[in-house]
Amino acid sequence: MAEVTMTRRSRITPEREAELYAAVLDLLREVGYDGLTMDAVAARTRSSKATLYRQWGSKPRLIVEALRGHKHASVDDVDTGTLHGDFHALVMRADDCQLEQESALIRGLAMAIQAEPDLLRVFREEVIEPELAELEVLLQRGVERGEVSADHPALGYVLHMLLGAFVTRTLIDDLPPTQEFLHDYVDAVIVPALGL
Amino acid sequence: MAEVTMTRRSRITPEREAELYAAVLDLLREVGYDGLTMDAVAARTRSSKATLYRQWGSKPRLIVEALRGHKHASVDDVDTGTLHGDFHALVMRADDCQLEQESALIRGLAMAIQAEPDLLRVFREEVIEPELAELEVLLQRGVERGEVSADHPALGYVLHMLLGAFVTRTLIDDLPPTQEFLHDYVDAVIVPALGL
Repeated sequence: MAEVTMTRRSRITPEREAELYAAVLDLLREVGYDGLTMDAVAARTRSSKATLYRQWGSKPRLIVEALRGHKHASVDDVDTGTLHGDFHALVMRADDCQLEQESALIRGLAMAIQAEPDLLRVFREEVIEPELAELEVLLQRGVERGEVSADHPALGYVLHMLLGAFVTRTLIDDLPPTQEFLHDYVDAVIVPALGL
Repeated sequence: MAEVTMTRRSRITPEREAELYAAVLDLLREVGYDGLTMDAVAARTRSSKATLYRQWGSKPRLIVEALRGHKHASVDDVDTGTLHGDFHALVMRADDCQLEQESALIRGLAMAIQAEPDLLRVFREEVIEPELAELEVLLQRGVERGEVSADHPALGYVLHMLLGAFVTRTLIDDLPPTQEFLHDYVDAVIVPALGL
């Protein structure tokens, strides 16, 4: 009886939880979904596998929760006065090292999604939807400035263009998605597609 | 001694090999890289795990070899007389069901690549490079017809645009990459990006 009470109460602290989630996402970037075993998480975070299973139940569930706490770069502070300038500012939110890590994380997640349908929902809620909402603010300003018409057919595909180039760069060219590549892609594809 | 000779000679037939590779790619589409266990391959193909390990050594190696035999739709017969027509013809090479399967395969592979660096090389050799070479023929005809200038900056990004939309559709919109979506994306993004 004492043990049951103990078990139920021995939840980890929020700080420890945040540290653990960060370690899970780091591991996902480094070794991918398949390599991200509960053993690896336990070793990296110096916790016991028993604790991990008691708190999260399964690996996909642990990844889902880790993703909920994922901080993504905000576009709130991007406002250069033109869409052209804003797109280039977006590219510069993360340095090349962060871009490569983020691309590894998305590749890892793209796979994990097939193993755990919940993860697609959480990925969309935590990563895609905030990004779409913030992009919408930026594009709306461009519409209000008269840079692009509100019914321009490419407006709904800006994230497909950006994220698409970002995730396919390694597959197509065997090169990381650097700032230089993304700046060039913005000028070659996104700017003309929107008729800027 | 007799057993060693036996083992070395008991290679499976080419027909059986092709059947096995097809089953591996089917499983990769259905359950992803993590779910694609040697047990699952053995069960699906009614072979023994011992045979699989003797012939291929490991799961990533088996996927690499399965991918080598992967047939992709050719663009050889796409020649409508305009780039606009050719892009729409490309979209129609595969029906919606095939598009969804192919997108699942690419998501599965995007992950597997992190676990097995050889796989990126084989994926590029067997899938990306033939696709780029065939796309080049189609784009070159457009250049010769005067539809687009040879130094147009978006010419080098056509596959990034196409494959990018294809793989991000599910992530961004939680919808499969159907023909209808790709036709719309061609008109909204690829055609204006190339200034057609």
